[in-house]
Amino acid sequence: MLERNNELTAWDRDHFFHPSTHMGMHARGETPTRVIGSGEGVYITDKNGRTSLDAFAGLYCVNVGYGRQKIADAIAEQARNLAYYHAYVGHGTEASITLAKMIVDRAPEGMSRVYFGLSGSDANETNIKLIWYYNNILGRPEKKKIISRWRGYHGSGVMTGSLTGLELFHKAFDLPRVPIVHTEAPYYFRRPDRSMSEEQFSQNCADKLEELILSEGPETIAAFIGEPILGTGGIVPPPKGYWEKIQAVLQKYEILLVADEVVTGFGRLGTMFGSDHYGMKPDLITIAKGLTSAYAPLSGTIVSDRFWQVLVQGSDQLGAIGHGWTYSAHPICAAAGIANLELIDEMGLVRNAAETGGYFRSRLAEAVADHKHVGEVRGDGLMAAVEFVEDKDDRRFFDPSQKIGPQIATALLERGVIGRAMPQGDILGFAPPLCLTRKEADIVVKATAEAIENVFANR
Amino acid sequence: MLERNNELTAWDRDHFFHPSTHMGMHARGETPTRVIGSGEGVYITDKNGRTSLDAFAGLYCVNVGYGRQKIADAIAEQARNLAYYHAYVGHGTEASITLAKMIVDRAPEGMSRVYFGLSGSDANETNIKLIWYYNNILGRPEKKKIISRWRGYHGSGVMTGSLTGLELFHKAFDLPRVPIVHTEAPYYFRRPDRSMSEEQFSQNCADKLEELILSEGPETIAAFIGEPILGTGGIVPPPKGYWEKIQAVLQKYEILLVADEVVTGFGRLGTMFGSDHYGMKPDLITIAKGLTSAYAPLSGTIVSDRFWQVLVQGSDQLGAIGHGWTYSAHPICAAAGIANLELIDEMGLVRNAAETGGYFRSRLAEAVADHKHVGEVRGDGLMAAVEFVEDKDDRRFFDPSQKIGPQIATALLERGVIGRAMPQGDILGFAPPLCLTRKEADIVVKATAEAIENVFANR
Repeated sequence: MLERNNELTAWDRDHFFHPSTHMGMHARGETPTRVIGSGEGVYITDKNGRTSLDAFAGLYCVNVGYGRQKIADAIAEQARNLAYYHAYVGHGTEASITLAKMIVDRAPEGMSRVYFGLSGSDANETNIKLIWYYNNILGRPEKKKIISRWRGYHGSGVMTGSLTGLELFHKAFDLPRVPIVHTEAPYYFRRPDRSMSEEQFSQNCADKLEELILSEGPETIAAFIGEPILGTGGIVPPPKGYWEKIQAVLQKYEILLVADEVVTGFGRLGTMFGSDHYGMKPDLITIAKGLTSAYAPLSGTIVSDRFWQVLVQGSDQLGAIGHGWTYSAHPICAAAGIANLELIDEMGLVRNAAETGGYFRSRLAEAVADHKHVGEVRGDGLMAAVEFVEDKDDRRFFDPSQKIGPQIATALLERGVIGRAMPQGDILGFAPPLCLTRKEADIVVKATAEAIENVFANR
Repeated sequence: MLERNNELTAWDRDHFFHPSTHMGMHARGETPTRVIGSGEGVYITDKNGRTSLDAFAGLYCVNVGYGRQKIADAIAEQARNLAYYHAYVGHGTEASITLAKMIVDRAPEGMSRVYFGLSGSDANETNIKLIWYYNNILGRPEKKKIISRWRGYHGSGVMTGSLTGLELFHKAFDLPRVPIVHTEAPYYFRRPDRSMSEEQFSQNCADKLEELILSEGPETIAAFIGEPILGTGGIVPPPKGYWEKIQAVLQKYEILLVADEVVTGFGRLGTMFGSDHYGMKPDLITIAKGLTSAYAPLSGTIVSDRFWQVLVQGSDQLGAIGHGWTYSAHPICAAAGIANLELIDEMGLVRNAAETGGYFRSRLAEAVADHKHVGEVRGDGLMAAVEFVEDKDDRRFFDPSQKIGPQIATALLERGVIGRAMPQGDILGFAPPLCLTRKEADIVVKATAEAIENVFANR
């Protein structure tokens, strides 16, 4: 074993290329190194002994909370028995097969199969490939474009980063790449015409979608992908009637629906799936974070039975499908998934997300909604956001260079609570572990109110 | 806990969407379900108690062998202390930082940073994005195409599947997609003109590469990606002088070199990296399988110091890099990586790959090379392949519909040994765990000779 502790900081700066980090500043030591050492419930503790309440659950993924020994034990047992075998050509392990069954049991009606990956990004890659395959099998080789939404987040690969509709993930990477086209974000607070009601705005989104489909040619559009509630784009629940109106358009032009439930799957909104929550009937569902609560990397595509029948037809024509990841259905990750889904049930976390989520969001609104720079407090289940504005009546936003969101997140962290400045707009996001208690919710609300006061008092 | 065992087979067929599997046949029960339960050294055992010698190490990834308690213990310990925290915005864990340092220590000269992913595919996605970013920062927005090779394997995503040069991974998925162009496979046995010497063939590959670059326009070509030795494309070592001649062309046109060392990294060829083995000087190195011996999903991009300097310049211009996977540098996977690299050193596996690899390949050649349907026995380190031909003198190949390769792999499995029929051509591949002993090598050779005899005797 190397001598670790003394030189960790130097090694970090010299050798560790962090995601979503300012590379120059970090390498030069201008931003803090933070080495996390342990976690318990909603709290994490770094190597300097500093503890924070993680009101974003890592990257909205540690849904059951930190330090759950049941999952650690399941991982340990699987690692000792059989750490790995692949799933190619019909191979499996007890853990991976069992987890596939458990996922389908929890999934919305009509879903039947699970293709396992590692990350939400790779699961959306799988989706794109399956959709193209599907339309090739059905003899519609031109029907290949995917519609995504501005402010959607669907991953960070070349294609999945293209699906994503956020500038940060496009700029300097030559994204998006064809054949992806973006449509309106269902973002009522930022609607162009403020006189619109929610329903009118939803209708407007559906109309714009239809215009896009007609201008591209319906015969070229294969699928529409969306998160039930926008996540990284600002934690924005759909306006009233949105999914109903969108699905009517999709159905009219035989366009598949992919529900990206990486954030919402397995309880985040107080229901097992966001699709059920908002009445979506997807053909494919992307799952990841909540599937294992991040205890091990695992993602998946849940395939509807109707879609599966076409895939079967495909392999009868073409043979084995040419799509595989070495670590698809990795046994350790599947074991973590099983223990995690069991724990979600045992701890009643889906119900707690609804109940404590409702409590948290009302308290947050009571505490900060009237502040003159708070434009909106919104959310659903255990997801919440506070959006800041320079002028409330005119709904005038701050210039991004002022970095209001990041400043408030930093002020919040100084008060021992982790929230996240969402990457586009001045938005502070919350998505705590689903085990959050009312007392813990109160701590987050109090610290948030103080952080907001403090940042604006000092301007 | 669900009642698992009784219904595993039914769940497998009804809910588990296997990679690289004939979906229809598997769902209908026309192909065997094989549930693997445990492993020890080079052996795996299924739930029916049947043991096989895995001469392909899973998917050439279980390099240290199965059942290593040191790695299982490291995973268990990390799972109990801190199963997850993210690496965004400069966060880290002791395990992830330490592993970054250990990788750079082992990497070829001039490499300095590690960006962690989960799979070889996502690491190659990272590479593509970094290469585009790099040339944007250097003010060369047109220099974006990537050259890959026919028969190369670089992943199964939309872009990485496009890098791959194998029909199985393109057909019905609309791949490859721009901006990827393919060049000659360095496959001496299948050279078009049989009168060429190895050196002449290498020169020919370099000439064809230069022709391609000139016809596309050198100002449009960003990078060349290649496995040091072709893997899934048939386990084909480079012909004499190949990498030297290729690198001379790349240098001439300022084209980056990406060494895809997913298979060769950490000892497979009897040297720590294939780049060192063949004198490659890459700008980026893709790593995955051997990094953890598959005990947990982990991949990475090793970035050269020269390349890193441009990235730093980029974030000084543009801010934090918009590229991240939630599970980048996952602590459990990093802990597995540390224990695995330590074990490779402790067990002397790099040296064993060279020594036992050499022994295995000579014994294999002695046993089967003279068979009238064996066209070539080849390999390097602990990678070997036997390629079958219908007629040896004319180098006439079998019609693919005869499925000679798969038949021999099946006959071998009936004799208790796992080899892999490579997906394009009648090629039987071997890549056993690096802990293979001479005695175990003898078992594989004997079974292979018998399997070949048997299949051809019954035709």
